[in-house]
Amino acid sequence: RSESGLLEIAQLRPDLLQADAAIVAEPTGGAVEAGCQGTLRLGLTVQGLRAHTARPFTGRNAIHRLGAVINQVAQYEPRVAVVDGIAFTEQLQVVSVGGGIAPNVVPDSATLVLNHRVAPDRSLDQAVTAVREYLGDLLEDEDVLEVLDWAPAAPPSLTHPVIQSLVAASGQPARAKVGWTDVATLHEMGIPATNFGAGDPLLAHRSDEFVTESELSDFAATLRGLLFS
Amino acid sequence: RSESGLLEIAQLRPDLLQADAAIVAEPTGGAVEAGCQGTLRLGLTVQGLRAHTARPFTGRNAIHRLGAVINQVAQYEPRVAVVDGIAFTEQLQVVSVGGGIAPNVVPDSATLVLNHRVAPDRSLDQAVTAVREYLGDLLEDEDVLEVLDWAPAAPPSLTHPVIQSLVAASGQPARAKVGWTDVATLHEMGIPATNFGAGDPLLAHRSDEFVTESELSDFAATLRGLLFS
Repeated sequence: RSESGLLEIAQLRPDLLQADAAIVAEPTGGAVEAGCQGTLRLGLTVQGLRAHTARPFTGRNAIHRLGAVINQVAQYEPRVAVVDGIAFTEQLQVVSVGGGIAPNVVPDSATLVLNHRVAPDRSLDQAVTAVREYLGDLLEDEDVLEVLDWAPAAPPSLTHPVIQSLVAASGQPARAKVGWTDVATLHEMGIPATNFGAGDPLLAHRSDEFVTESELSDFAATLRGLLFS
Repeated sequence: RSESGLLEIAQLRPDLLQADAAIVAEPTGGAVEAGCQGTLRLGLTVQGLRAHTARPFTGRNAIHRLGAVINQVAQYEPRVAVVDGIAFTEQLQVVSVGGGIAPNVVPDSATLVLNHRVAPDRSLDQAVTAVREYLGDLLEDEDVLEVLDWAPAAPPSLTHPVIQSLVAASGQPARAKVGWTDVATLHEMGIPATNFGAGDPLLAHRSDEFVTESELSDFAATLRGLLFS
């Protein structure tokens, strides 16, 4: 979120953000991609008991404990939440892992970081609780599960007349945005917003990302029609 | 092994190592702890495919793959090898783990280090093969399993008359050494050797390690008896 500059504009020129509704020109393949998912980063530290690796039965290997947690995350079946008729597919991934004391020591601590993509029907607290419940008995009292970062989700806002007109003008059914975008920040500011733009969203952030001239022309024509019809 | 100084003595004063048999005065609780286990350090790198965490199904999470490997290691049932009547219990532990690209990226690579304690009936090649077979289908062609470090095991040498006399003088049955000691280096030099000393082996390397005066007296008396009887 810090990369977008939207919060800076809100501070320096709030007059530019006086709007009935907003369109974020993310690449969406010319369809309305409604709302956006929240993104939650959770840090987990699990505890063990240090021992010599020749006598591991006198300790408890924290990395071995983490193996069960990683396996549970790897078996996660995405929850699909339908909000205002739009289906948002959640995700849960381990994005980093670390641990180890010395080559001959059973480690007493190990950590991982989870990234959870959260549908707009859940708050931060609900998302953290859901992950905690999903990990269940694998977490013990001395383990620490902490929120490292949270960017909230935004609902589809498809009942707003401007966004309804945009869906009609796009000629395609609205679908969920996969990923987090500035639609969430605009929603927090009280501005109904949606993603709509030219280009394939699957190419976003890739080094060979591209958009064709005809996609850009169609995009411009749709916006012109929306503004001047 | 580099900490013991034995290899340095072998270089500078090989005459000091002219011996029929050798006693390494490790803490063994006054019993003969025969031979020693080998210790093998293996590095494993597993491959995946990078993706955005909002669309993990377009990639393959290498840390998630590692979860299955860690779980398999955590379920390892120690192999017990009986060599010359002495039972050596092998061990397999994950001693470090690492991986992760960025908070929103499904990682395409992850690593771990294993420490395997190996009974004297197996060579380096046999030990590596055993670990590879134990991990089985969890390893794929592009994954890399490499030897980082190996210190060989030593057999019990209980047929040597000096060590037989020491077992008798100790008043306790001989048992296996748990861990790696200089007995292995002496064995490589062609000197039958065993561990025998005062103090509790479970306290070794602990900050509150101690040995009692009576344990030291018994130890000295046993050696005196062995040398002058």
